[in-house]
Amino acid sequence: MLPQALTDAIEALGHLPGVGPRTAERYAYYLFKSSSAITKNLTSTLGALHAKIKTCPVTFAIMDANQDVSPLYTDPSRDQTTILVVEEPLDIYALERTKAYKGVYHVLGGAISPMDGITPEKLHIKELIARIKKDKVREVILAMNPSVEGESTAILLTKMIKENFPQSGVAVTRLARGLPLGVSLEYADQITLASALDNRTDL
Amino acid sequence: MLPQALTDAIEALGHLPGVGPRTAERYAYYLFKSSSAITKNLTSTLGALHAKIKTCPVTFAIMDANQDVSPLYTDPSRDQTTILVVEEPLDIYALERTKAYKGVYHVLGGAISPMDGITPEKLHIKELIARIKKDKVREVILAMNPSVEGESTAILLTKMIKENFPQSGVAVTRLARGLPLGVSLEYADQITLASALDNRTDL
Repeated sequence: MLPQALTDAIEALGHLPGVGPRTAERYAYYLFKSSSAITKNLTSTLGALHAKIKTCPVTFAIMDANQDVSPLYTDPSRDQTTILVVEEPLDIYALERTKAYKGVYHVLGGAISPMDGITPEKLHIKELIARIKKDKVREVILAMNPSVEGESTAILLTKMIKENFPQSGVAVTRLARGLPLGVSLEYADQITLASALDNRTDL
Repeated sequence: MLPQALTDAIEALGHLPGVGPRTAERYAYYLFKSSSAITKNLTSTLGALHAKIKTCPVTFAIMDANQDVSPLYTDPSRDQTTILVVEEPLDIYALERTKAYKGVYHVLGGAISPMDGITPEKLHIKELIARIKKDKVREVILAMNPSVEGESTAILLTKMIKENFPQSGVAVTRLARGLPLGVSLEYADQITLASALDNRTDL
């Protein structure tokens, strides 16, 4: 009974991650109610995504399609001998916002999850090992998500890097665990709290 | 540092209701990662929304742009002397899914909310009164949302209908209040519970 054009839009919006039929309905109805300029802007920017963005062949970050390598790698102010490894490209931008990191990045493209068919071969691990060798990397910082998959991936990466560079002294580190800002002690889970205690800092 | 095309898409997606920067980022990245056919389908269906859908001049429901009046009104199997009044067009489809209603609808276009500038004049109340007269309506079912705004609107509508049709016997009813399916007694709020008790049904 819904107009066909609306049903089509709802069905298409339902493909977005975490969007169910009700949310898709709200989005579609909102776009119908608002000025057509808003919809036009949305469709033209989304339509441009595939044409104007691509994946960097070195870091696997996303970049403008007219670039050869991500500026986050080629920028001379960045230290190419320190690689921070993340699961997904957007993780980079969360880190970049801190303005606290001046090394380069490497995107794995996910974390190991055999249940979902993500085996180590599907991640950009080979390319990471090759980069460590080529760029004479001195430190690899692992910044996987604190999930079972992220932890397994970090363990595997550590093992592989140690095996591949047994005596060259590539340091493998990972982001600190501790209390996040704004979370009361009483609500912190015990693993986080134990890490925070273990890694306490001098004042 | 994000590619411009991605920033643009995130900014455009951020216009959707309830979508913040992080959610917009997820949507944009998802679309970039998935096949361009999905994005194309989304942009073409959204682009068609304004051209292919319009508001019915009688019921204010949404309908295909090539129709003159909503089929929910013209369908001969529907009883035009019973009008169910809702706030927004999508409420109709929630009711239609029940397949329990065979009358017609009237969309107010919101609920009275002076704080948001929604005065009674901005709602399709005049048109409702005119329809009641023209179609010799016998029952008006109010189906506003159970909010302060919805309640005020229902009270005003009742008053206006009674004033405009003092002796013609237009019944004004509203949807029953009671326990929804799947909610335990202990979690029901007291107003709902009091209504459920007041309106208890024989077994």
